[in-house]
Amino acid sequence: MLPILASVGETATKAESAMVLAGVLLSLVVVYLASKIGGELSNAFGLPPVLGELVGGVVVGISALHLLVFPESGATSSDSFIMSILQATAGLSPDATTATFEAQSEVISVLAELGVIILLFEIGLESNLKQLMEVGIQAILVACVGVVVPFAAGTAGLMLIFGVPAIPAIFAGAALTATSIGITSKVLSEIGRLNSQEGQIIIGAAVIDDVLGIIVLAVVASLAKTGEVDVNNVIYLIISSTVFLGGAIVLGKVFNKSFVALSESLKTRGELIIPALIFAFILSYIGAVIHLEAILGAFAAGLVFDETDKRKELEKQVRPIADMLVPVFFVAVGARTDLGVLNPAIPSNREGLIIAVFLIVVAILGKVVTGAVVFGKEKINRWAIGVGMIPRGEVGLVFAGVGTASGVLSDALNAAIIMMVILTTFVAPPLLRLAFGDAPSVEVKAD
Amino acid sequence: MLPILASVGETATKAESAMVLAGVLLSLVVVYLASKIGGELSNAFGLPPVLGELVGGVVVGISALHLLVFPESGATSSDSFIMSILQATAGLSPDATTATFEAQSEVISVLAELGVIILLFEIGLESNLKQLMEVGIQAILVACVGVVVPFAAGTAGLMLIFGVPAIPAIFAGAALTATSIGITSKVLSEIGRLNSQEGQIIIGAAVIDDVLGIIVLAVVASLAKTGEVDVNNVIYLIISSTVFLGGAIVLGKVFNKSFVALSESLKTRGELIIPALIFAFILSYIGAVIHLEAILGAFAAGLVFDETDKRKELEKQVRPIADMLVPVFFVAVGARTDLGVLNPAIPSNREGLIIAVFLIVVAILGKVVTGAVVFGKEKINRWAIGVGMIPRGEVGLVFAGVGTASGVLSDALNAAIIMMVILTTFVAPPLLRLAFGDAPSVEVKAD
Repeated sequence: MLPILASVGETATKAESAMVLAGVLLSLVVVYLASKIGGELSNAFGLPPVLGELVGGVVVGISALHLLVFPESGATSSDSFIMSILQATAGLSPDATTATFEAQSEVISVLAELGVIILLFEIGLESNLKQLMEVGIQAILVACVGVVVPFAAGTAGLMLIFGVPAIPAIFAGAALTATSIGITSKVLSEIGRLNSQEGQIIIGAAVIDDVLGIIVLAVVASLAKTGEVDVNNVIYLIISSTVFLGGAIVLGKVFNKSFVALSESLKTRGELIIPALIFAFILSYIGAVIHLEAILGAFAAGLVFDETDKRKELEKQVRPIADMLVPVFFVAVGARTDLGVLNPAIPSNREGLIIAVFLIVVAILGKVVTGAVVFGKEKINRWAIGVGMIPRGEVGLVFAGVGTASGVLSDALNAAIIMMVILTTFVAPPLLRLAFGDAPSVEVKAD
Repeated sequence: MLPILASVGETATKAESAMVLAGVLLSLVVVYLASKIGGELSNAFGLPPVLGELVGGVVVGISALHLLVFPESGATSSDSFIMSILQATAGLSPDATTATFEAQSEVISVLAELGVIILLFEIGLESNLKQLMEVGIQAILVACVGVVVPFAAGTAGLMLIFGVPAIPAIFAGAALTATSIGITSKVLSEIGRLNSQEGQIIIGAAVIDDVLGIIVLAVVASLAKTGEVDVNNVIYLIISSTVFLGGAIVLGKVFNKSFVALSESLKTRGELIIPALIFAFILSYIGAVIHLEAILGAFAAGLVFDETDKRKELEKQVRPIADMLVPVFFVAVGARTDLGVLNPAIPSNREGLIIAVFLIVVAILGKVVTGAVVFGKEKINRWAIGVGMIPRGEVGLVFAGVGTASGVLSDALNAAIIMMVILTTFVAPPLLRLAFGDAPSVEVKAD
């Protein structure tokens, strides 16, 4: 209808609006085709579907088909094949293309972020709070070792072996710290190990890791900016994250019964899912505005509902929503990944490649050792725990993005970090499956 | 996390991105609170929940709380209470506020449009294609009368009684034609009459009305622009809409079995909902780009799946997705409605008010008479059919928007059209309930 609107002199904003919708619809079709084809193929080869979704994302993204590209990674509207399709089929005018491309990318980015919020909410729902508390000390230990070892080894190695100056070396070391909870938890869920003791330690450690990663990023960022560490900010982040997670859980325990009562008193459609989403989105919002992460809030909300009588029904209702939104996240992560930096035929990539090999080794070994620190559990699968901490995913990409934007990282170092993120992300799902393999795992009884 | 990104010199685009997410989360919380509180209150008073959702939208929108406002209706970021909250709580910088506001509004608008797409998909799923075909002739008759009568009476009345010039009078008359399928179908579904013969005639007529409305808009718009009617375009629209709806249904019948087979062969999560969404979004996209409407495609997709064995399971899975997205549409329609134009204390509103009274009378009577043309059905509830065609909803607002933008409509006439849309939208749900009341309705057996 909109070309007609435009024809009677409607403003450009409105004319784009229908094009933005058309672009979003087309992007979602691409996302779903990529995730389904990738996921099914991956599954057919005995690999976790999420790996296929990531690969599907790479295929449709900046590295290959250019169907799904994002302005943040430097793509312009002329790089977007979807914009070309809109120009050819929907009469999108070249003038409106840039604005339409940006708006459409913004919408897809937000849908992807809503996807990871829903994913973490679902993971929280599926997790067992009591069990998570039981493995609390273990998880904290695993997380701390998994932050300190790769950070120290990475920074020292870069300075001593490659002669990288201190600040960029610290930055690259910091990029080695944070585990991607999204990828790890999805794989655990897919192989049915989320509620194993190993799974709960990994999830707990990944959450703590995420918090530690945010603190490390804050420290490193202020270091890069001012040359010194803002101690107040570090203390603030440690306290706020602890208070936030603890407070959400305590408050949730109180809120639990009234939530069930509220949901039962509501008479119109969405009586369960809407109050749950309100709670999850409020916690996500708080998580985002106190400079932590939205996904932390969503995870806390899921954990809280895990304790209610409505959990089973809620899980069932969240499932289709997750099925709709989560693939947007994984395909977008894949689509944003530029495999071009891996091409050794381009001479400028070579320095980065060598550093990358070093970073990858440190990234994998630095996390695998974390399994060793788990104590008092005879039969636990230490390999699986260490391997579960390997993927850096989107968190590592944030480090690379911040580093490049601040001018601290050289192109080579930036490319090396991106390669480390890609490799650890892609290598972890099959390794995790292998690590669990036929080894006995300490199963938690369902309650 | 993003303020930290900003602090190391990240570009403005990235810094906004987290703010956009925070704004979207907050907007969704507002949408859900408004829709749930409104819906429950409405339900408690024996009214359809969707009416409460619309009122809830008005309360949080441009007319009252300013929590949800949109740039298209002339609001700026300083009108948005959510932006003020973001500035106060999330450290949104004043410089980035306008861009953040626009991006956030864009995302909410697209979510609302996805909401109405999912709604029409669900309505299509719940509709009965065979039954709809049976009432086909009736629906076409009702639709045609419901377009011709209000258009002719409105245009003639405005010219003869109020001395309005021909082109604006034709424009205002055209704004009286299109029925809001979203509101009517939601109410029918809520009162359990969607599959009554009356319900199916209303839905069928509303769909045809939508198509006729688009054609009328195209005619009127080209009239306003060039002073003459583009016959080719009119013929194009009539043919394309017929071919599209017919083609989708025929193709769907063929596609039916292979869809069920495909879904059964898929082994990973989302094996049913994802292929269904792919099909729905592709049809929506085609509907949008051939200058019809996205919702027409979604409706056709739902109709097609209505015929498959997987229908029940699909309905169950679409429900939570609809619960999540549909309220965004209704609350946004309410939030965009400016009740300020109804204030008679402002002198400039008075001319509009008088014209509005005339338009409202024509709008209601012109649709109520359509029930009379239904033939060959002894026991059918003709009142209910006529009343079901009353709400103009968002379609009428599009006419007002196009008219104002093209400079054809005076402020008074524009205000009158908006008032007509508001009144018919708000009056239809309770009237429809009343019309069905205890009257016997010809129920369709579920199959």
